[in-house]
Formats: sequence, structure tokens, C-alpha cells
Amino acid sequence: MADAPSGFDSFSCPVPFARYPQILLAHGGGGKLTHELIAQLFLPAFHNSLLEPLHDGAILTLPGERIAFTTDSYVVHPLFFPGGSIGDLAIYGTVNDLAMCGARPLYLSAAMIIEEGLPMDDLRRITMAMRAAADQAGVALVTGDTKVVDRGKGDGMFITTSGIGVIPPNVDIQPVRVRPGDAILINGPIAQHGIAIMSVREGLSFTTQITSDTAPLHSIVAAMLSACPDIHVLRDPTRGGVASTLNEIASQGGVGMELEEDAILIDEDVRGACEILGFDPLYVANEGKVIAIVPDAASDQVLQAMREHPLGRRASCIGHVVDTHAGVVTLRNRIGSMRIVDMLSGEQLPRIC
Amino acid sequence: MADAPSGFDSFSCPVPFARYPQILLAHGGGGKLTHELIAQLFLPAFHNSLLEPLHDGAILTLPGERIAFTTDSYVVHPLFFPGGSIGDLAIYGTVNDLAMCGARPLYLSAAMIIEEGLPMDDLRRITMAMRAAADQAGVALVTGDTKVVDRGKGDGMFITTSGIGVIPPNVDIQPVRVRPGDAILINGPIAQHGIAIMSVREGLSFTTQITSDTAPLHSIVAAMLSACPDIHVLRDPTRGGVASTLNEIASQGGVGMELEEDAILIDEDVRGACEILGFDPLYVANEGKVIAIVPDAASDQVLQAMREHPLGRRASCIGHVVDTHAGVVTLRNRIGSMRIVDMLSGEQLPRIC
Repeated sequence: MADAPSGFDSFSCPVPFARYPQILLAHGGGGKLTHELIAQLFLPAFHNSLLEPLHDGAILTLPGERIAFTTDSYVVHPLFFPGGSIGDLAIYGTVNDLAMCGARPLYLSAAMIIEEGLPMDDLRRITMAMRAAADQAGVALVTGDTKVVDRGKGDGMFITTSGIGVIPPNVDIQPVRVRPGDAILINGPIAQHGIAIMSVREGLSFTTQITSDTAPLHSIVAAMLSACPDIHVLRDPTRGGVASTLNEIASQGGVGMELEEDAILIDEDVRGACEILGFDPLYVANEGKVIAIVPDAASDQVLQAMREHPLGRRASCIGHVVDTHAGVVTLRNRIGSMRIVDMLSGEQLPRIC
Repeated sequence: MADAPSGFDSFSCPVPFARYPQILLAHGGGGKLTHELIAQLFLPAFHNSLLEPLHDGAILTLPGERIAFTTDSYVVHPLFFPGGSIGDLAIYGTVNDLAMCGARPLYLSAAMIIEEGLPMDDLRRITMAMRAAADQAGVALVTGDTKVVDRGKGDGMFITTSGIGVIPPNVDIQPVRVRPGDAILINGPIAQHGIAIMSVREGLSFTTQITSDTAPLHSIVAAMLSACPDIHVLRDPTRGGVASTLNEIASQGGVGMELEEDAILIDEDVRGACEILGFDPLYVANEGKVIAIVPDAASDQVLQAMREHPLGRRASCIGHVVDTHAGVVTLRNRIGSMRIVDMLSGEQLPRIC
């Protein structure tokens, strides 16, 4: 674990929250209020020896020479939703992008663009969610930036996280390594995150609340790589859903894919919500899901490793890579007929992550 | 130079600009339009072997084990200003943060948050400015992200860049290394960037147009480190200006500083604009400026190295670190009287970078 932050429990609500109930433009001006915000909120929340020097960047020593480097902006609306917030989404999303490169996530940066007027208490809750998520994922947040835009020129808060991880020597995860015959695995039921967000936005209520599946995937991926270091491709099917992700890989790898509808799990309430909203669950965003494309011979081992992990209890093999219809993904339904599953066209769920 | 992109000249205006004159929400949806935008704009603009695989992250092999890692969001308004745009600002800003750690900048990421309705031609100009700036700085843009927010929830475009650089073995730049007796150097006249932005916003015109000093500082810093590897502190005085930057270092290092007003160069038109706008130039943001705090004995060598570089022709020694009044920066004016130069309080120039 990378120099993980500590002292979260002792983190209490400091002065500026009392002085300023909302974010002011001056909190992004680089002067006294910026320093107060950093010293009294971000530094106690994230503190670790690498962040402490508050230099223009963090100085790191990496335990390996092949590294993964990734970035993502988070613009999810609303900022808080069932099962999570923009804070943990921003940490887990980047942790997961590193994991999808086969890397062990180590260090994260966070750049925040805050709209003037954001309640300071919302910022505090989001910061604490980021800290808890970083602890959960075993990463340290080592450098950051805070900008404030005037009221009406943002939407509460956007967060951009970047991450660095180290890739073990024997791991080589790349879309172009996909091969006909490979098995396509996923660690559980799909479409939860997108529906959790949409149900809040649309004010839908169901018998049970649908919560986001947001989660850090690094440890299930580590378990899968232990079972089979030769995993060909890993990808988290976020924006555009399982359908767009698989189309992307099929097209990059120049292969076809055949999915079995029966094997793709969808929870009943999620399926119901999709029907009400007119969404095809294959295109709805996921967060804590990983698609693994593995040599068929290793498929059972990897599935078993997934099922032994809390995030993979309901893992399944949802189809195979084929050497026909290159670039095209098909789905065989329950009565055996096939349809083409294309990439998402147009916009289904804006600002889902 | 890090696997620098090539083929910029052959980059022409591709299909989607004709099909869509403006950014749509679907350009951020992760489906067909997102892929079209990446394939037809970003990939040709930035192409390099590390970006090409379009994985969730870039896989890098680093030529050294001590690295600098930094991030910054750019929210400058307007997007285009005399001397630059948000595109080159976002590249140079992160290149400079790496240089301020004493690092050789190598790899950058870029995450864009675009407001629905941004003219596609603006996005194209900004992208090309980023590419030209990356070429200029000798860095490769190896990974990125695109999000689109609905109209009225952003402001044209925000860019977050993160960067990785390698620190030479004998370099150790840290605010806490500042020592009484050290000389405080700067590579030229101050307050240009902030005034260039404000003059556009306020519609001011001067006999000559005031242009931003935005520039990549990695090569002048390399020259300075060649002259004296023992430089104690480097810092670019952006938001909050020279005054806030020096206050920050004085407070982190537990030292005082005495500046000589005479030695701090300010161009006449910039001084005039500051008077009209009621700004103290010491608090106005700079972009292509570096403050170096160096052992006094090495001061002449470093100054000479600065003056031999195109970005340092007018470099000067603006003061010294002292062992009295710890944490306080003072300024001796032309007639010899002293005043305290505090950190910026409140907000002078919102969204300057």
C-alpha cells in the first residue's frame, strides 16, 4: 500500500466552514482563502508525507519501471446519489482505469473545479468521501489543484483525477491481444450505476432502492491476474455500457464477439427501471464492473477467482470472441435468434460519471 | 525528448466539423460521436505510439526512478487572449509545474470538460494550440478524457492536465531548503499575463497590445540547473502573483524575505494598466516567469545562465532571504522605506488560469 493517509477519524470541521458557509471566488484565487481551504480542509483530509510539502508537484519514487498513467474528469449529476457521490466515483474511477491496465494503483492527483456558492458542507462531505475511497483502494492522493468558477459557469463541482500505478513484469493487458476463442467474463449484474443516477434525476422510486455499483476493482483484478497472468484484455464498461465497450474492443482487435443474453445478469428492479425509462441495459453505464477477455482454457480458473472475491460473487461468462464478422458484436437471445449489438449512438444518459 | 508527436502540418479539418458545427452532449456519451471526435480530432492532433492504443491509460517506461507528478485545472476566461489560449496555457502550466520540481517533463494527460454548444472550430483551434505547445515543450500527450456538460453548466471549456517528469539524481528542489542569505531571482518583468487577460475582459486598449507571457520554462530551468544544481527553490508565480508565491515560500521555509522594488521589472504599459485597474503588480498573475532561490555565491552564475536564454534576457535579482521576521516578506521602495508585502487577500482576478 502506498504511504496511505491516516488520521481520518480525528478529522473535524475546521474554521473556514464556520466563517464561510459557501465557496467564494476567492477560495480559488491563490491567496489567503485558497491557503486556508487547503490547510484546513484538504490537507487534514488527505494528509500524507508526499502531499505535505505542498510543492507544485509531488516527488515520487516508483517501485518498478513500467507504469500506467491515466486521467478522467467526473461531471456526474447529481453530486450525491444512492450508493455514492462524485467524490468516491472520482477516486474509484481512476483506480479502476489503472487496474484495467493490469497496474497496481499507487498515487492519485485531484483537481477540483468548484462553482461559486457550493455549500461548504457539500465540499466537506465530498472530500471525506474521497478520503474514505482512497483508503479503501490503498492509494495516496499526493497532489492537487483547486479552481473556483463564477456562479452559473459550472455545476456544483467537477473533479479530475489522474493516477499512476505500477505494472507487474509478467502482465500485458491490451485490446489488440484479444484472440478468437477467448472467453468474455464479467463480475456481476449490469446497468446498476446508470439506473441509480437516473432514478434520482427522474424521481423514480422502486420497491427497493437501486444503488450504484461504484467500487474499486484493483483487488479483484489482482486476484484474477494471480489466477491467470495471461489475461488478454480488461475493461470497465462505464459510459456507453457493456455494448459500447465490447464494440470498441472488437473493433480495435479486429475480431467478432458473440454474447449469450441468458448469461448477462440484470437485477429485476434494474430491468424494470430500464423498461420504464426505455433504456437497453446493455448501453447503461456501470462503475464497479470489469470485463475480462481471457484464453478459453483459463476461463474457469479466472471465474473461480472472481467468485471468491466479494465483488465477483455473481461473475459469469457472457460470451466468446469469434473469428467471423470482425468488428461486430452479436447477441443470441433466449429463443436462439441473433441480433447485432452496435455501439451506442447518440446520447442516452448524459453526465453519468 | 519524449516520443514527441509528429505530423502536425498534415493535420487537416476532418469530417465531424462539417457534420456538427457545435459540440453536442452525445460527444461526451462514450458512444459513436465520442469515438468520432477522438478518432478524427484528438488522435490525429496528438498522435504518438503511446496514445494510439486508446486503452484506459497509457503504459510508460520511465528513464529514472525519482519522478515528479502534478496536476492543474485551467478555467481561464476568455478561452482566447492576446498571446495564447486555454490550450497552450494548459500544456505550459503543467510543463512548468514539473520544471519547478526540477524535473524534465515527459508525459502529459489532458481531460476536457466541454460545454454543449462550444463551436467545433474553437475546439479545433484549442486542440491545435495544445499540440503546438506540446511540441514546443517536447512532451507527449499520452492519455486523455472528454466529458460534455449541458449548456449553462460550464463555460465553453475547462482543461485539466496532469504531468510526469523525471528528476535528475543531483537535483533537490524544495521550499524547506530556502536559507537566510539566499538570492531571489526572477527571469523578467512581472504582471503581464494577468493584465493581458484583464485588458481583454475590460475592453481596455493601450498603445501596444499587452500579451500574455505564457511559455514553457523547462529549458531555461535546465540551463539554470546546469549552472547550479544546488538551486534551493523554484516556483512559478501564477495565481496570487510574486507576492503570494514568496509569502508561501517564506512561511513554509520559516524565513523572512527582503525585496528591492527597483529590481522588480514592470513594463510601462503593464504598470499603466495596473494603475487604471487599481491592481498592485506584485499580486498579478504571471505565466512564463520563474522565481529561483539560490545560494548567494551561485547567484551570478545562475543569473548569467538565465540571461543567455531567450526567456531570461531581463532576469534580475529582486532580493534576499533573511533570518529576521520569519514568514514575512518586505519591500524596500525607491526612497529606501520598507513596507510589508502580505499574501493576496480576497480575489483580485478570478479565472486568470
